[in-house]
Amino acid sequence: MDALVLRGQIVYAPFPKKLTVRPDAYLVAEGGRVADVYDALPEAYAGVRVEDWGDCLIVPGFNDLHVHAPQFPNRGLGMDKELLPWLNAYTFPEEAKFRDEAYARRVYGRFVRELWRVGTTRAAVFATVHAPAARILAELMGEAGLGGFVGKVNMDRNGPDDLIETTGASLAETERFVEGFAEGRVRPILTPRFAPSCTEALMRGLGGMAARRDLPVQSHLSENEGEIAWVRELHPWARDYASVYDAFGLFGQTKTVMAHCVHVTDDEIALMLRRGVYVAHCPFSNLNLASGIAPVRRFLDEGLNVGLGSDVSGGHRLSMTDVMASAVECSKMRWKYVDGRAPLTTAEVLYLATKGGGSFFGRVGSFEPGYAMDCLVVDDARLSDETPRSPEERLERFIYLGDDREIRARYVDGALLSEPRGG
Amino acid sequence: MDALVLRGQIVYAPFPKKLTVRPDAYLVAEGGRVADVYDALPEAYAGVRVEDWGDCLIVPGFNDLHVHAPQFPNRGLGMDKELLPWLNAYTFPEEAKFRDEAYARRVYGRFVRELWRVGTTRAAVFATVHAPAARILAELMGEAGLGGFVGKVNMDRNGPDDLIETTGASLAETERFVEGFAEGRVRPILTPRFAPSCTEALMRGLGGMAARRDLPVQSHLSENEGEIAWVRELHPWARDYASVYDAFGLFGQTKTVMAHCVHVTDDEIALMLRRGVYVAHCPFSNLNLASGIAPVRRFLDEGLNVGLGSDVSGGHRLSMTDVMASAVECSKMRWKYVDGRAPLTTAEVLYLATKGGGSFFGRVGSFEPGYAMDCLVVDDARLSDETPRSPEERLERFIYLGDDREIRARYVDGALLSEPRGG
Repeated sequence: MDALVLRGQIVYAPFPKKLTVRPDAYLVAEGGRVADVYDALPEAYAGVRVEDWGDCLIVPGFNDLHVHAPQFPNRGLGMDKELLPWLNAYTFPEEAKFRDEAYARRVYGRFVRELWRVGTTRAAVFATVHAPAARILAELMGEAGLGGFVGKVNMDRNGPDDLIETTGASLAETERFVEGFAEGRVRPILTPRFAPSCTEALMRGLGGMAARRDLPVQSHLSENEGEIAWVRELHPWARDYASVYDAFGLFGQTKTVMAHCVHVTDDEIALMLRRGVYVAHCPFSNLNLASGIAPVRRFLDEGLNVGLGSDVSGGHRLSMTDVMASAVECSKMRWKYVDGRAPLTTAEVLYLATKGGGSFFGRVGSFEPGYAMDCLVVDDARLSDETPRSPEERLERFIYLGDDREIRARYVDGALLSEPRGG
Repeated sequence: MDALVLRGQIVYAPFPKKLTVRPDAYLVAEGGRVADVYDALPEAYAGVRVEDWGDCLIVPGFNDLHVHAPQFPNRGLGMDKELLPWLNAYTFPEEAKFRDEAYARRVYGRFVRELWRVGTTRAAVFATVHAPAARILAELMGEAGLGGFVGKVNMDRNGPDDLIETTGASLAETERFVEGFAEGRVRPILTPRFAPSCTEALMRGLGGMAARRDLPVQSHLSENEGEIAWVRELHPWARDYASVYDAFGLFGQTKTVMAHCVHVTDDEIALMLRRGVYVAHCPFSNLNLASGIAPVRRFLDEGLNVGLGSDVSGGHRLSMTDVMASAVECSKMRWKYVDGRAPLTTAEVLYLATKGGGSFFGRVGSFEPGYAMDCLVVDDARLSDETPRSPEERLERFIYLGDDREIRARYVDGALLSEPRGG
């Protein structure tokens, strides 16, 4: 029997409101899927070796719903700029380098190893416009055992010459890119960069491809007020930013995630809800690029699908624990200065970083039966003190203080992941 | 000749507006004080061994202007609470344990070692009401070679029974505490916890002691709106919160630092300016306790003395690089949501964490001639990428991404500090 049994202090968030805590419990998986969590190991598993992690916490693997792999070398740089100048000064020049496949292999190798280190087990990733480099990224993530979506970026206007494609080539390259995927847990995703980078013809073509091939879509929505004004100018016929994507079949006609959504309108929220569009909330990026803070409490109250994104390198930290802490901090500032809505709790940000975002990848991000057996073993001895702390408190402390040094093991679909060589 | 010569990529902030960068330069100290920074080593130092740190950055040691050592075990816990409930649920119960000197020695040992690790070379530290434990803390900081001020906390009202002192005992214990200090770079500081914890008699007594013995003072000011209303209720005669301290000689009559100052009025700012009172800006704590964000840009524009504080454990991170990044992030949210004043820059937060706060300790926090030779050697290889980066960019990246793993060496007053045993 292909069973896996981990024993430890099991904490997960099947709902946003409250953590489920199972001290000294057994997390059992079969065929890479969670069977259940048991206080005593059932007779049926008597022959299976128990991986006893003692006092370690066992939590679901983290899901990063928005990250730009080629911007990995830029993280922590250019933090004194807003979105559009930052794109031109740092992001576009770096992305242009990924024409060079050897460079891409090295940088993406480092990126994948760092994902592994920080315990991100699945991610929705932007590559660059260069399909060969994007293929390398998908291959490296697959080899590392990580899951998620990788997108070759599309942009056929308003970018530097060395990143702009013709509309026809962009579509043709994308079609070849998605066809090139073998089966596996890394899948392709259509990735129009954002409306200002894509002509209507390109968006129409991508929307058609999404429908025809049932491909998911990722892009950016309403991050910055200058960006929104620009979209209005480019598409004067559209009611709002979301309607631009929607008109071309890129807004929930297939599974869709939109990063940021800081300044979305009531109409846009209503459309997202109707279409099941995901929000990738990226708190560090909201802060660093001074975009403002997305109204996450409202999104949750309205029933939207929400996950968290590191948004490297608009966000400077790849680690989802850092992103979680920042999401709580941001929500407190919205409470204080913007709308008086309740801040996010520790349970809620764990939910967002696991099951909330994980559902974009399938049954991912929880230890409920049938979920992918993605988990992290967390040894928080370095953070501990003399007072006994509950698993809930230890989880909170790990989120606020921990880093890759606390993560002892990572499993995806029931497989223990060894450290990737890359980079 | 008692000279020390370090060679490396030297970066410091003698002014808030711009970094001083001296690539491949020599930082020379004599008798623990900076002589100067040279592009070529002067003849006079020809016989001195050069400690060549190659491509490492050399920056001033960090100064933490507000930190509670006994709250070290609580960092990252209770982050779902505001100031007053958080004090009662987490802070006071932990502080009560410091009656036990053996416990104090263990926890303070860990705290001091962590200060060393994260590159904080001087700090203004709150202990608890327990003078013996506070003495142990000062002793451990001194043994580790760190500098700064340690205060035995005073509180004779509105606290739990096991932390409240009588007015007379509080004053007498404090007098003995300050008398017990030997010469050295760890000095005593008067530490009325905050106005609501101190009767007017206690504050009057402490103000007298400050004047009589020329002792510095540290406390809290205007962190939270509930706290401010409480102070108004307790001292109906006072024009504002600052006037309470001022009436008792605890507001700049001697060197004074006030943590937070989130909600200070125009009058309070004017008084702080007149009296040279320092602000210890604690961005993480502003966020975690949802107090609001202190108007740091305004403080700088008005010419106030400002430094940064970790405020462990209202702040969860002891590392000043984390505090610097958070200060920039907070300033962006104030720009966006509160007052439209320009966000802080990387140069400005380095200034605040070095010379800005450092001046509270004397000529500390810069590499100008005559300054204490406090510095850190930073090896950022782990954070680097293939693109050559300027020292300014590398500093920014270290602030945003780095941690104790990047710090290769720490010097205080020209002495290399070895890792403290403690804890």
